[in-house]
Amino acid sequence: MPDYPPLASSRTYAILGTGALGGFYGARLQQAGMEVHFLLRSDYEPVRQQGLQVESPQGNFVLPHVHAYHDVHEMPSCDVVVVALKMLQNGLGIESEVAAIVGSERVMGGLCFLCSNKIGPGQIRHLDYGQITLGDYAVNDAPCGITERMQQIASDFQQAGIAIELSEDLLLARWKKLVWNIPFNGLSVVLNATTQEMMASEPIRALATQLMQEVLTGAAACLQRLSPEQPNRIIPFDFIATMLDYTQTMKPYRTSMKIDFDERRPLEIAAIFGQPLRSAQQAGVELPHIQMLYRQLQFLDTRNRSC
Amino acid sequence: MPDYPPLASSRTYAILGTGALGGFYGARLQQAGMEVHFLLRSDYEPVRQQGLQVESPQGNFVLPHVHAYHDVHEMPSCDVVVVALKMLQNGLGIESEVAAIVGSERVMGGLCFLCSNKIGPGQIRHLDYGQITLGDYAVNDAPCGITERMQQIASDFQQAGIAIELSEDLLLARWKKLVWNIPFNGLSVVLNATTQEMMASEPIRALATQLMQEVLTGAAACLQRLSPEQPNRIIPFDFIATMLDYTQTMKPYRTSMKIDFDERRPLEIAAIFGQPLRSAQQAGVELPHIQMLYRQLQFLDTRNRSC
Repeated sequence: MPDYPPLASSRTYAILGTGALGGFYGARLQQAGMEVHFLLRSDYEPVRQQGLQVESPQGNFVLPHVHAYHDVHEMPSCDVVVVALKMLQNGLGIESEVAAIVGSERVMGGLCFLCSNKIGPGQIRHLDYGQITLGDYAVNDAPCGITERMQQIASDFQQAGIAIELSEDLLLARWKKLVWNIPFNGLSVVLNATTQEMMASEPIRALATQLMQEVLTGAAACLQRLSPEQPNRIIPFDFIATMLDYTQTMKPYRTSMKIDFDERRPLEIAAIFGQPLRSAQQAGVELPHIQMLYRQLQFLDTRNRSC
Repeated sequence: MPDYPPLASSRTYAILGTGALGGFYGARLQQAGMEVHFLLRSDYEPVRQQGLQVESPQGNFVLPHVHAYHDVHEMPSCDVVVVALKMLQNGLGIESEVAAIVGSERVMGGLCFLCSNKIGPGQIRHLDYGQITLGDYAVNDAPCGITERMQQIASDFQQAGIAIELSEDLLLARWKKLVWNIPFNGLSVVLNATTQEMMASEPIRALATQLMQEVLTGAAACLQRLSPEQPNRIIPFDFIATMLDYTQTMKPYRTSMKIDFDERRPLEIAAIFGQPLRSAQQAGVELPHIQMLYRQLQFLDTRNRSC
């Protein structure tokens, strides 16, 4: 008998990108007893020596020893590879980029609703939320239903205390996430404002509502174009009110795009704005408010990184 | 014979609001020999004692003695009253506000293209431009043609070295000014940018062009609604290219709305955005990009003055 505890799952995990998101979920999986391998860049040396620390309202914990790698080629083959690089987390078109490398049959999509920051090398501060919507991927973004492997991965994350929602329709889930991300990530940067300040303003609530309506218009046109035989691939109209109510009641929050902007990192605007606008245009609809916001963000992003 | 020089014109002038604009034009008129009476608020005492100073690329000059008033009731009757209060300089609906007080037959409109700042009490720094477009006013914004009194006033200003363009159609002239003011005043505040920075950005040039196109749409609908029998009350489409070229070649410029914003003064957004949007809506057209910009400005203006 080995003198270390049995593994909770036979599946092994690789985390590509051990930041606020990958570090949080990977640490949780290892804490729950799973075998996890972490890819790091600048934090490799401190994490190899001191492991990972997580502060969380659900309890702080330390993993003094983690499998840390600086070179992806030295990592062992793993059953599940979690791509947690910032530029591959949000928006549309992410899965097809990964599928072009590993083949579409090996790709799933995970949408994370997580407030978490990296506060130092290997130090992660989890603030709120954490649930993941998981969906399987197929070429042409066809809905895949609930697959066996989705349930297996969900079971591992649930063991690690992560709430998982399974989506039968990954593309629909991605558009639903845009209903929030487009207005609030975008306007938070342009207006230099928190969610609370924006929700307290009547003109901005009206504008956010218009932007959300355009996301629904874009989603309907794109999903209709991809699968005309499936008229139920649609975001219900009352989802807008749900998202506004949710934003009203959440803690005052600096959005992830605003944090990127304040840290002078590149904004994820190509995936969150550019790609949805292109998809909608191909489906024959214009989204003027979203396009205007995208243009403002392009200007601000370019200037932010050039001065 | 009196021992002071004869007056250049028999018309007397009152300047209501002796700031960067009223102070500049009033000083020029007095310098040219006209009788001018200045209404002042906070600068009354220093101007009464020391007069007005103007710095200008066309030559600096000092008027050691001016007729200064702190109370409008103490001013003599004048032939021409120049309303130079900041909140009554731009946008739509200005003349009707003044007409409601003095009667529409006593109102004309003047559109000033002036870069000028007040740098101290009674101290005006003229930077560039200065020309005025003058138009006569009639109820329902009917075009008035070139009237006798327009020519008289133009003659006085021209004597004072101010270029004057006479407009047969004041409302059309006001909409034409909005073609520039709406995109560049508005975006300069939202993007915290100079005209040069905006023109250097492809997305912002595209957005400015769209905003200008919407101003043309609004103007066409409103003027068509007011006077369906006059199809020539229209801004020609190539006016957009003219304005873009003009902006490209002008010196890097902080717009007047941006200066107001930086000084935490209220923005003239009700006249420049709110009123044109309302007029367009009454004429049956929506101007979505202008409305979005207006909403962003309402948010920024409110926050700017509350913190």
